Amino acid sequence: MLKLYTYFRSSASYRVRIALNLKGLAWDAVPVHLLKDGGQQHVPDFAALNPNELVPVLSDGDATLVQSLAIIEYLDECHPQPPLLPADPLGRARVRALAQTIACEVHPLNNLRVLRYLERQLDIDADGRSAWYRHWVERGFSAVERMLAESPDTGRFCHGDTPSLADCCLLPQVFNAERFRVPLSAYPTIRRIVEQCRQLEPFQSAAPEAQPDAE
Amino acid sequence: MLKLYTYFRSSASYRVRIALNLKGLAWDAVPVHLLKDGGQQHVPDFAALNPNELVPVLSDGDATLVQSLAIIEYLDECHPQPPLLPADPLGRARVRALAQTIACEVHPLNNLRVLRYLERQLDIDADGRSAWYRHWVERGFSAVERMLAESPDTGRFCHGDTPSLADCCLLPQVFNAERFRVPLSAYPTIRRIVEQCRQLEPFQSAAPEAQPDAE
Repeated sequence: MLKLYTYFRSSASYRVRIALNLKGLAWDAVPVHLLKDGGQQHVPDFAALNPNELVPVLSDGDATLVQSLAIIEYLDECHPQPPLLPADPLGRARVRALAQTIACEVHPLNNLRVLRYLERQLDIDADGRSAWYRHWVERGFSAVERMLAESPDTGRFCHGDTPSLADCCLLPQVFNAERFRVPLSAYPTIRRIVEQCRQLEPFQSAAPEAQPDAE
Repeated sequence: MLKLYTYFRSSASYRVRIALNLKGLAWDAVPVHLLKDGGQQHVPDFAALNPNELVPVLSDGDATLVQSLAIIEYLDECHPQPPLLPADPLGRARVRALAQTIACEVHPLNNLRVLRYLERQLDIDADGRSAWYRHWVERGFSAVERMLAESPDTGRFCHGDTPSLADCCLLPQVFNAERFRVPLSAYPTIRRIVEQCRQLEPFQSAAPEAQPDAE
C-alpha cells in the first residue's frame, strides 16, 4: 500500500495527491502537521525518513521517496496509465519546464520556512512578507502565462487535452496564491486551465479541504 | 548545432554545460551577461526566448528549451549514452531527488535576483545576506550529505560509479558555496564526490573559469 506523508495545505503534497488520484492508485494519508509540536516535520522519526524535513514523502513498500516532482515521475514510470508526461522528448521537456518554473522559481521562495525566516530572522512585517510573496508569484506566473498562451501545444490543459505533471503543479500554486490574495486577472490562460482541473474528481479529492487533516 | 545561452557564473548554466560535455556533444556558448546593461536576460530579444528571463536556454534547431533540469533530461532522452539517470525507477527517483534538493531547496533562494531583492527592497545588509545564503546552503547540504552518506547506492559519484544528473547539480552548488565562503567541513561525502567530479575533463571544461565569458 502506498503511504503519503502529507499536510493538507502543503502545495508540494497537493501535487503528489493529484498525481496519485489521476493514476487511480489507492493510498493512505499520514498527516504531518507543519505547525504543531514546533513542526512535526522536524521530529526525529520524520527527519530520519526525510533529511530535508519537508513533506511530501511517499512510502512504497520498503522504499522511501522524497521531492514531489521526483515522486510524480516515479509514479508515472511504475504506473504508466494515464501518462503524466507526453511521449516525445520536446513535449516532455516543455511539461517539465512548466512544472519546474513553479517548483523552482515560485514555490521555494514562498513556503513556510522562508516566510518564517523573513519574519523571525529579518524582522520583515506582514506587509513586507505579502509583497515578497506576491512578487515571486507574479514573476513566475507571468512566465507560465506566456509559456502557455504563446504555445500551440497548450490545450484544455497545460499540454494538450489531458492533465500532466504541469497541471499537478499549477493548481496547487494557484490555490496558494488565492490564499494569499494575489490578484490573478493578468493570467487568463492559467485561470482557464485551473478551472478545467477543478472540474475533475482526481483534482477535487486532492484538494486541501478534502483531506482528513483539513482544518 | 546546439546553442547554449549561458553566463559563466550561473550555476544552473554550469549544470547544463556539464551534461553537454558528459554526453560529448558539440555546442556553442552564447554569453548572456546577468549584470551588464541592467541584466541582458531582461533584454526583449532574450525575454522572448525565455519568459523566465533566466539562463540557461538551449536552442536545438528550431526548438527552445528552458529550465536546467528539464534540459538535461531532454539531452539524456535524445542522446542516451552515457546515461545521466539510472535505469530503474527507484534509482531514477533517488537521482532526481538529490538534484531537486539542490535545484528546489537551495539554489532558488540564493540566486542573483533573490539576493538583490533582499538588498534593494528589504534593505538587508551584506552580513544579513551572507547569513541568509549560508542558512539555505547548510539546510540543503545537510540533507544531501545524509542522503549520500546513509545510502548504499552512493558510489564514487552521487549514484554509483558514474556521474549522473545529481553530480551535474552538486558541483555547481559547491562552487557557488565556496565563492560565498560557506564552510563545507560538515559535508565529507559531498566534498569527496566533488573532488571526483573535478578530476574529469567534462566537469573541468564546464567550469566558470573555463568559459569564454569568464572574467
